[in-house]
Amino acid sequence: MTERRWDPTLQEWVITATHRQERTFKPPEDYCPFCPTEEGAEYPTAIPEPDYDMAVVENGFPSLQPDPPEPAVEGSDLLPAEPANGQCEVVLFTPEHDGTMSQEPVSRFVKLVKLWRDRYETLGEKADHEYVYIFENRGEDVGVTLHHPHGQIYAYPFVPPKIRTELQSSRDHLEEHGRCLFCDLLDAEREDDRRIVAENDAFTAVVPYFARWAYEVHIYANDHLPSLKHFDEKHERALGSLLKDIQLAYDGLFDGEMPYVMAMHQQPTNGTGEGYAHFHMELYPPKRTADKLKHLAGSELGAGTYINNKLAEESAAELRESLDAARE
Amino acid sequence: MTERRWDPTLQEWVITATHRQERTFKPPEDYCPFCPTEEGAEYPTAIPEPDYDMAVVENGFPSLQPDPPEPAVEGSDLLPAEPANGQCEVVLFTPEHDGTMSQEPVSRFVKLVKLWRDRYETLGEKADHEYVYIFENRGEDVGVTLHHPHGQIYAYPFVPPKIRTELQSSRDHLEEHGRCLFCDLLDAEREDDRRIVAENDAFTAVVPYFARWAYEVHIYANDHLPSLKHFDEKHERALGSLLKDIQLAYDGLFDGEMPYVMAMHQQPTNGTGEGYAHFHMELYPPKRTADKLKHLAGSELGAGTYINNKLAEESAAELRESLDAARE
Repeated sequence: MTERRWDPTLQEWVITATHRQERTFKPPEDYCPFCPTEEGAEYPTAIPEPDYDMAVVENGFPSLQPDPPEPAVEGSDLLPAEPANGQCEVVLFTPEHDGTMSQEPVSRFVKLVKLWRDRYETLGEKADHEYVYIFENRGEDVGVTLHHPHGQIYAYPFVPPKIRTELQSSRDHLEEHGRCLFCDLLDAEREDDRRIVAENDAFTAVVPYFARWAYEVHIYANDHLPSLKHFDEKHERALGSLLKDIQLAYDGLFDGEMPYVMAMHQQPTNGTGEGYAHFHMELYPPKRTADKLKHLAGSELGAGTYINNKLAEESAAELRESLDAARE
Repeated sequence: MTERRWDPTLQEWVITATHRQERTFKPPEDYCPFCPTEEGAEYPTAIPEPDYDMAVVENGFPSLQPDPPEPAVEGSDLLPAEPANGQCEVVLFTPEHDGTMSQEPVSRFVKLVKLWRDRYETLGEKADHEYVYIFENRGEDVGVTLHHPHGQIYAYPFVPPKIRTELQSSRDHLEEHGRCLFCDLLDAEREDDRRIVAENDAFTAVVPYFARWAYEVHIYANDHLPSLKHFDEKHERALGSLLKDIQLAYDGLFDGEMPYVMAMHQQPTNGTGEGYAHFHMELYPPKRTADKLKHLAGSELGAGTYINNKLAEESAAELRESLDAARE
């Protein structure tokens, strides 16, 4: 069962997806739905082929669906309910179940950027899909239960609240200063220089001035590119290369695959954002030391005020050192 | 080191509090800073007395301080930095290290409400303190490392973002409909009735229509009371009694102390909120089943869109049954 309900106090949609609790399918212990289906296997996986290179499959437990059921409750003017229209896909980064992306060649990252671009364009064409959100949950520390390297794509029937706020801020800034907020942010970060982790001719990776997580990293397009659709070959190569750099820096920091949530922010596919949407990726790793996690608790969840236990300048220096060591 | 930095993309303050990482004090394994100091003890606790009933002490690692240091960075027009003015207190609910609040008599809850009221009024008098935020982080699942039953109070030098949004929504609703948003929400919940968990003559506990967490509970004042300051004896007794009911329902649900984050939302102490602030408490337990936690990941952290795996109506029914069983 999926549906969306309106919260009039925070003015945003909340999705219910109860079928994720009801899973009854009992595969063998070592079954992975994201590995290729071996010949004669009793339980077929999401990939009917004996091998693949990189793949996109439908999410088996989608929170948003093209033909969702009617909501379980009747809405009202104060408390609307709507079907959870949309689409949920899984992107399989590699056929290797125990693959580690930071050890893959840059070409695989470039291929991934091209695939993301294709899905952004294709899913964005449907009128229901106001925002195509590409993201990755990585590691048990962020709640991941399937370990095969993969990311996700949600096509939402609305612009999600965090992205809506960002776009509104950027729009206000454009009206007041005549410039894109993210272009100005990037200029400020480059001028200061202490929080830059890595950069190339098309993208810059930085621990943002206002980082909420100890090792948060944002990757901004150097030029004012609203979305993946605006990329040319140079941008695809440059983003792929910088993504690999950040993986190397992360995985070297505490000697093992860094858990994180990756969020890609770009222009909505509903026709808005022209002039003030600016492509960037945000990575939030929950680790604040090798063995301590940051938990979101009273201040973050109840008041919305984040407390970061690290200075962004120090985190950036540590990540630069880690990247240098990994490149040697 | 503490400071606050402005995020111009989400338009909110982020606090850095690096000294929380630097703790060097090495007490014995069984040392609890929140127990009374025993006679002749080598390491004194936060309470120099041999016993206490309920107490408030300063937070030993405060994120906000009355005389904070200068920020580590120089701010700019685009990226301001400010000292982290404010105050952080710890409320000790009981002298018993292994105490369980749901087993305490109602009188202890009433005493706690009176103590909260006193701190709200006292901390709210200082001009620096725009919002007095009373909250509780409970259980290892929300990151708690000190198990002695306690809550916290932050006096913020700004109205925190989540509360600011709520107040703005309520203000807009008042202007449009001539009524407080929370009064209307409560009326809608009482008319529907399916999501009510418990109620008495002054407060109502409900799994809100738009719950983000499987067993989220909000406690609303039945009358339009802006803050603790507006309570009389009846309200203090009624809130204490309902708080105990919710603890009983929670602790009985999965047979053990329910972990949760509790957030108290009320009128800011900066003079705003008149007419549209409405006292309520919000409880967010991370458990979605006895042994499964809800993690905030890609959709919540990167897009701000929550996905709830339970229907609010079903959760409310389970909590009502749990409360009935506990009362028998």
